[in-house]
Amino acid sequence: MNATKLADDVDLPVKGVQDLLEAYEAAAIVTRVPGEDGSFRAVSDLEWLCYQAGYVSWAMNANRPFVENPREFLENPETARRTHLRDMREVAVSSQWMGSKAFYPALLSTVFEARPRRIVDLGAGTARMLIEVLQAFPETTGVALDMAHDACTAAVEASKFAGVDDRLTVVEAPIQSLADDPTVLEGAQVITAGFVFHDMMPEEEETADRILRNCRSAMGSDGFLAITEAVPYAAMGWERRFSALVTYMHQQFMGRRLLTESQWRDKFLAAGFSEVVCIRQPFPTGRLFVVRP
Amino acid sequence: MNATKLADDVDLPVKGVQDLLEAYEAAAIVTRVPGEDGSFRAVSDLEWLCYQAGYVSWAMNANRPFVENPREFLENPETARRTHLRDMREVAVSSQWMGSKAFYPALLSTVFEARPRRIVDLGAGTARMLIEVLQAFPETTGVALDMAHDACTAAVEASKFAGVDDRLTVVEAPIQSLADDPTVLEGAQVITAGFVFHDMMPEEEETADRILRNCRSAMGSDGFLAITEAVPYAAMGWERRFSALVTYMHQQFMGRRLLTESQWRDKFLAAGFSEVVCIRQPFPTGRLFVVRP
Repeated sequence: MNATKLADDVDLPVKGVQDLLEAYEAAAIVTRVPGEDGSFRAVSDLEWLCYQAGYVSWAMNANRPFVENPREFLENPETARRTHLRDMREVAVSSQWMGSKAFYPALLSTVFEARPRRIVDLGAGTARMLIEVLQAFPETTGVALDMAHDACTAAVEASKFAGVDDRLTVVEAPIQSLADDPTVLEGAQVITAGFVFHDMMPEEEETADRILRNCRSAMGSDGFLAITEAVPYAAMGWERRFSALVTYMHQQFMGRRLLTESQWRDKFLAAGFSEVVCIRQPFPTGRLFVVRP
Repeated sequence: MNATKLADDVDLPVKGVQDLLEAYEAAAIVTRVPGEDGSFRAVSDLEWLCYQAGYVSWAMNANRPFVENPREFLENPETARRTHLRDMREVAVSSQWMGSKAFYPALLSTVFEARPRRIVDLGAGTARMLIEVLQAFPETTGVALDMAHDACTAAVEASKFAGVDDRLTVVEAPIQSLADDPTVLEGAQVITAGFVFHDMMPEEEETADRILRNCRSAMGSDGFLAITEAVPYAAMGWERRFSALVTYMHQQFMGRRLLTESQWRDKFLAAGFSEVVCIRQPFPTGRLFVVRP
């Protein structure tokens, strides 16, 4: 990719793009392609840089409304939460960057190992994970549930592009709808959910419990639930600082309650499951719960 | 310090302050005072955390207008520079944090070693460095020059508090004024200037050159100039990334031209100085030039 082509693609002045590429080169973010004058490519560790930048971006960009208005959030949290909304694109991008190395690989290998006939992802976003699974296993069908219209549209497009749209059903609905109508869960061998259950705590905890029971009912004996969640104030040295940030942001600013490992365990058992494995992740404060009937 | 006292001091709800202190404790930013129930103090490495946070804060907070409006700055830099102004408090705080470990110590030890009779600091801010020097050497007099009214007011207050106001003259004026009226430089044995000369490049380079000549003329044979500056695109591995950021931000977004080590050297020699020592600093891309007649 050279500056002229890139400037044309993004409709920016060539000089500006050229200077930016040179700054990126100085920062070892891009490198010159040997033998192709003026052509650059990303460095091989760019995805690791994005992974690391994900943490900073989540802290500083995704949570900017909290960082900029601490007094309002401390004095009138309810009002402040309605007034100062997060930029959901910043949330999505920083989460994807963190997840790329920190929670996605563990989840994906768990799912791949199961080679599920049918998989349902709750809060599927653009269905990136499901598409990867459907591409790997040509017999597998899937359901991507998400409440965001744009994410669902992107999921449909991406599934067409990947040639798996005949096996992927995209459902635009809030996860809460599954408490009363669990139709989309039917026949699922694997149900996945990443960082969506805590969004129901504390106000909709009873709804969350009903959804978990419905997951259990929809599932055969060879099925499992794979839930990625954040636990509060993880105290291990390597994860304590980011964990403290995640916990405090959720509790004070978003008004969410994070459950501990044992609280999650009790909740799964109360919903009718009998085996709970908790896998610590590279993501500080993140846990993958693999829960079986 | 406990939550009740702190909440009262900053006029915030006690519960909110208590929760924040507990989050800080979880993040190892504060620690409980043994034997004093509910009382916290900063951890001993807090100043190192601030130092590290300074780099992130400079990149993400001080430069936020550029980060948020890249297209405007690439398409119409002149307009964008007038429209999207930096928050100078973010600039000052992040610079002070970075400087605390990265350029302040080398400068201070250079000045202390000289035990100057009279010292003039150009772009003195709140005169923190000068006050420290005047406190150490009871015979020394100083001049703090800064164009920011608030900084000058704070400098006067701080010098009174430190009991050195009878030996410190605070001058509210732009450094550019010294090109035509170098009175404040008279009798200076040491003249210091941190990151102020590059602000004159490229438009006012001739003014900068005249100021340097006036510095030389004002100075006796035992005097020196200690200038801290950023050089462009320092290529050493450990400093290349932050250096690329500093360089690009100054060139593209602030419209400044950074000079290389040898360009600075030539400039000092052209101004009538004869010895230039360049000291690499812990600050990536930063250089301390000690320049003698």
